[in-house]
Amino acid sequence: MTSAVSPARALVCRGCGAEFPLAAQHACYECFGPLEVAYDADALKKVTREQIEAGPDNIWRYAALLPAGQDPADRITLNPGMTPLVSAPALAAELGMTGALWVKDDSANPTHSFKDRVVSVALSAAKGLGFTRFACASTGNLANSVAAHAARAGVPSIVFIPSDLEQGKIITTAVYGGELVAIEGSYDDVNRLCSELVETDEFEDTAFVNVNVRPYYAEGSKTLGYEVAEQLGWRIPEQVVIPMASGELLTKVDKAFSELVEIGLVDAPANGWTVFGAQSAGCNPIAVALHEETDEIRPVRPTGIAKSLNIGDPAAGLYALEAVRRTGGWMDYADDDEIRDAIRLLARTTGVFAETAGGVTTAVLAKLIKSGKLDPSKETVVYNTGEGLKTLDAVASLVGPTHTVKPSLRSVREAGLLG
Amino acid sequence: MTSAVSPARALVCRGCGAEFPLAAQHACYECFGPLEVAYDADALKKVTREQIEAGPDNIWRYAALLPAGQDPADRITLNPGMTPLVSAPALAAELGMTGALWVKDDSANPTHSFKDRVVSVALSAAKGLGFTRFACASTGNLANSVAAHAARAGVPSIVFIPSDLEQGKIITTAVYGGELVAIEGSYDDVNRLCSELVETDEFEDTAFVNVNVRPYYAEGSKTLGYEVAEQLGWRIPEQVVIPMASGELLTKVDKAFSELVEIGLVDAPANGWTVFGAQSAGCNPIAVALHEETDEIRPVRPTGIAKSLNIGDPAAGLYALEAVRRTGGWMDYADDDEIRDAIRLLARTTGVFAETAGGVTTAVLAKLIKSGKLDPSKETVVYNTGEGLKTLDAVASLVGPTHTVKPSLRSVREAGLLG
Repeated sequence: MTSAVSPARALVCRGCGAEFPLAAQHACYECFGPLEVAYDADALKKVTREQIEAGPDNIWRYAALLPAGQDPADRITLNPGMTPLVSAPALAAELGMTGALWVKDDSANPTHSFKDRVVSVALSAAKGLGFTRFACASTGNLANSVAAHAARAGVPSIVFIPSDLEQGKIITTAVYGGELVAIEGSYDDVNRLCSELVETDEFEDTAFVNVNVRPYYAEGSKTLGYEVAEQLGWRIPEQVVIPMASGELLTKVDKAFSELVEIGLVDAPANGWTVFGAQSAGCNPIAVALHEETDEIRPVRPTGIAKSLNIGDPAAGLYALEAVRRTGGWMDYADDDEIRDAIRLLARTTGVFAETAGGVTTAVLAKLIKSGKLDPSKETVVYNTGEGLKTLDAVASLVGPTHTVKPSLRSVREAGLLG
Repeated sequence: MTSAVSPARALVCRGCGAEFPLAAQHACYECFGPLEVAYDADALKKVTREQIEAGPDNIWRYAALLPAGQDPADRITLNPGMTPLVSAPALAAELGMTGALWVKDDSANPTHSFKDRVVSVALSAAKGLGFTRFACASTGNLANSVAAHAARAGVPSIVFIPSDLEQGKIITTAVYGGELVAIEGSYDDVNRLCSELVETDEFEDTAFVNVNVRPYYAEGSKTLGYEVAEQLGWRIPEQVVIPMASGELLTKVDKAFSELVEIGLVDAPANGWTVFGAQSAGCNPIAVALHEETDEIRPVRPTGIAKSLNIGDPAAGLYALEAVRRTGGWMDYADDDEIRDAIRLLARTTGVFAETAGGVTTAVLAKLIKSGKLDPSKETVVYNTGEGLKTLDAVASLVGPTHTVKPSLRSVREAGLLG
């Protein structure tokens, strides 16, 4: 059984290490650094594989490793997670890999992106903290997820998006009936505005999942590490390729692997694991900092089709750099044509239709093999974090019927389909 | 453990009862009636709840009740199934229901419709029968599913669709890289053409999932009955509302419930169960036949936005009529405006964004309550068989941002969002 007590102990500053109580706070009062949830090490060490395996077939099987939702009655959730880990031998062959290749396919979540994981944890924490309205700044997938979670829970929501989002992501947010505010600006503009709104009296009752309850939100991404390890038979893969927007997903998958080793749920791999980060050429500030061997991440104004990754001023970029350097990994980026080609390659070889972010990771995987940065003989997991149906425009001009004929055998024969 | 031997015994004519060996045959050589898979009753009776519950979290937990895929190595599958059964109290309240209401949400399948179930069973059977190419006639969802299954399995595919399909369903088929043939005609034209192609030498190696291996294909829909019963704690709901295209899904859910009772996996409900069928006003031949108290189903030329249900000459219509009459149910149909409103109602109250077919069932549920045909005090399951992202056009003109503002507190205040 899952313990009904949260293992979370405090919020700790990632910059100076100062500790704060578990509240709706995301920046350090001492140094303004970002806060992260810290856990009671003894509580985590009590968690067993058997306890997890007896849990539900979703992220809540890991509730004893998360900062919210220990009691099912306290969850605000669409029950995401335990998405397929798809064996990809045909993709491996096309890329010249001899090691096992897997696609962790998070398009299978309820609103078809990994954001359902972080939103479920954030809103469950927000409910516990007394918030009565849910909000977010979003590049699209987060908007979908917050609006859907709020609709199911019957809680009001207000979602802020850049006004140039893909139509699919706008409709899929608006259909749930909450407030949807289009901002004439970039995602970074939207994010800044939300940071201001959260300080106003009118938004005192409002949990912005990626602002004032961000530390809890970010922890939800750990489940993408836990699941891969459990699905591999309680084993950490040698290499992972992860898309980067804020960079947080990458750091949390790495954190999840570290936790699993620390608490004894998996054996420490002989040669550790190696973390690779993927960005688009239109928004590559973290990868450029790595390439230039600096810790200074220069914000960019994002361009390109991989809109769900278009965060020009990435909040966790520094920590993503740290994880990649520590594990001996690398980062690279792909341009729009490479992304489009990779979406088709992934679909053709695995049956997984990814949104542009999945095209980014697949394209970067190919580049990392070519450049020798990633070892093609090692077991590798590439993360697809979203659904191709949300970014149809990316491939709309490239794919379509191979033949158009009249409904007669004669017409089919003339098209060359009958010998 | 799942037995590696198929419980299927023969193909039996639904018309005259003649029996045939388990081959690639879909019509009776005696009377041209449709064939259905018959099982070894003793084999089915050996299946236990424990055996099923120990199985994988997808349709293959029911392999011992299906005509193919008993051995995992023989499966051609994306592992669909065990989709959420979502409690819908807010929707029940809006519809004036006092009984429990559930949404069986099959948009959670790998290609986001219930077709992944039937395709997995059909293609696994097809592999066993020696076919080396996969094909279908499709209104869209089936095309997506066959193309994705073929891509993952590395088997060639050729998919036939009406050329006026929603763009989303065309791209989501074409992206997997198989042959995609657009036919200038209706679905019924496409279906007729495929019935001709299947007889040609050039297509001798080709399994058309809904033509020559149709009996196996149809059995996959039983899993939508099994799962609901298992998810309710091995109990059959009092009322189910099911969308009808060919009418086959409805008959197979009813068959699944009957089987579960016969083989002792659930207790026979005191008052049985009642099956309701839902069509769109643009394609309502089965419902009209019920209303007119006839067995003569007059084919129609379908119109309207619920394209995935647009089968004007429904192959299993007669059997759907039989199931609805036998269980004391009813059928009704909804027009396009009612479908659009119901999609939004479902999304707003449950967080489930359905394609038009889900709008049809939700709209018809509301109608059945108003007309007194469905008892609002009884436990009811409404089936959503597809994903809203595939039919965005249906609601695109009705939903969007509630506000559009510049990225400043002042602009937000002027929009009335700050008191």
